[in-house]
Amino acid sequence: MTVIEFSYDFGSPNAYLVHKVLPGIAAKCRAKLVWQPVLLGGVFKATNNQSPMTAFASVSGKLAYQNHEIERFIARYDIPYARNPHFPVNTIAMMRGAIFAHGKPWQAAYTDAMFNAMWRFGERMDDPDVMARVLTAAGLPVAEIMAAAQTPEVKAALIEATTRAVERGVFGVPTMLVGTEMYFGKDSLNDLEYDLARQT
Amino acid sequence: MTVIEFSYDFGSPNAYLVHKVLPGIAAKCRAKLVWQPVLLGGVFKATNNQSPMTAFASVSGKLAYQNHEIERFIARYDIPYARNPHFPVNTIAMMRGAIFAHGKPWQAAYTDAMFNAMWRFGERMDDPDVMARVLTAAGLPVAEIMAAAQTPEVKAALIEATTRAVERGVFGVPTMLVGTEMYFGKDSLNDLEYDLARQT
Repeated sequence: MTVIEFSYDFGSPNAYLVHKVLPGIAAKCRAKLVWQPVLLGGVFKATNNQSPMTAFASVSGKLAYQNHEIERFIARYDIPYARNPHFPVNTIAMMRGAIFAHGKPWQAAYTDAMFNAMWRFGERMDDPDVMARVLTAAGLPVAEIMAAAQTPEVKAALIEATTRAVERGVFGVPTMLVGTEMYFGKDSLNDLEYDLARQT
Repeated sequence: MTVIEFSYDFGSPNAYLVHKVLPGIAAKCRAKLVWQPVLLGGVFKATNNQSPMTAFASVSGKLAYQNHEIERFIARYDIPYARNPHFPVNTIAMMRGAIFAHGKPWQAAYTDAMFNAMWRFGERMDDPDVMARVLTAAGLPVAEIMAAAQTPEVKAALIEATTRAVERGVFGVPTMLVGTEMYFGKDSLNDLEYDLARQT
C-alpha cells in the first residue's frame, strides 16, 4: 500500500488546509496517510529558508495574492478558516504533543484539535493555559500530554524527526513524501493525486 | 466570451510550459486566449520582486525541487523542453517583437518560434544574428520585425504593457488574468481551469 508522509507544523495555515483535504485524497487513491510532525523553525534554520511572510514582505502584491489563493482554496473545498490574530504563534509545545500523540488512539483527534484551534478558532496556542483548555474541550488527556511535552525523550524525538525530514529534502511545510518523491505546498496536491492515481 | 490574458516573457521557462498547455485549457473551457507580452525585468523592478533563481539561491533544496516540478510537468503534459545553456538571456528584442506581432496573422507563429528557440532548442536569443536566423527558419518577416523592435513606438508600447500589467497586480510570469481574477504560476492552472469550468 502506498504511503503518503505528511510533514506539517501547526503554525502553517497552508498545512492546515492540506490537512483538511489530504485524507480525502488518500482515501480516493487507497493510500495510507502518515502524519509527520516537524518543527518548521528547525527546518528553516537547517535549509536557510524563511516564511513567505518574511521572504516576500517587500514584494508588491505577492502576499496579497497568496492570501487570495487561500481564499480560493477554502471556497473550493468548503473549509472553515480564520487568520490567527496571534500569528506568529510558537508551536513547539503543540509539536512535541504531536510527537507524543504518534500511534495513540487519540492521535487524529489531537491533530484536528490543534489545527482547528490555530486556523479556525484563532487561539493563542503558545499560552499553556489556552492549550490546556483546548485539549480539555477536545476530551484529550491534558495532563499526560502537557507533561510528555516536557520530557527529554519527546524533545529529542521532535528534533530527530525534523532533522530526518530535512535529510529527505524537506525545506518547508506542508510537504508530502511518497517514498522519495516530494510534493511541496497545497499547489502540489493536484500532482500528488495525479501520480497516485497512476500508481493504483 | 471569457477572456484569459496571458502575461509572459520569453525568458521564463514556466511561461513556456504554460504557453504549451494554456491553449488546450482555453479551448476546453471555450475561453478566448490573449497573449500579453511584458518585460519581466520591468515587472520585477516595479514590484521589488526577483527571479526564483535569485530569491532561493541560498535555500537548500528549493531550486532542485522547482527543477523537479518542471520535470514532472513536462512528463505529465509531454512537452519537449531543454534548459537554455545561455540563461539568463536578455529578452528585450524578442519582447518588442511580440508587441509588434500583436494582431498580425503570424503572431502565433512568432510566439511559438521564440518560446521554442529559448526552451526547446537552447538558442542564444539575445544575439541579433541568432534571432534573425530563428525568424528566418520560421518563415517570419525578419527585416520587418528586427526594424520594428527598434522603433520608439514599439519600445514605448512594451513599457506601457508592463506598467499596465503591474497596475493590475502582476508581480511575475506566467500570470493569467480573467477580468480582475489573477492566477500566478503553472501551479495555478488547475484553479484557473476549475473556475472557468464553473463559469460556462
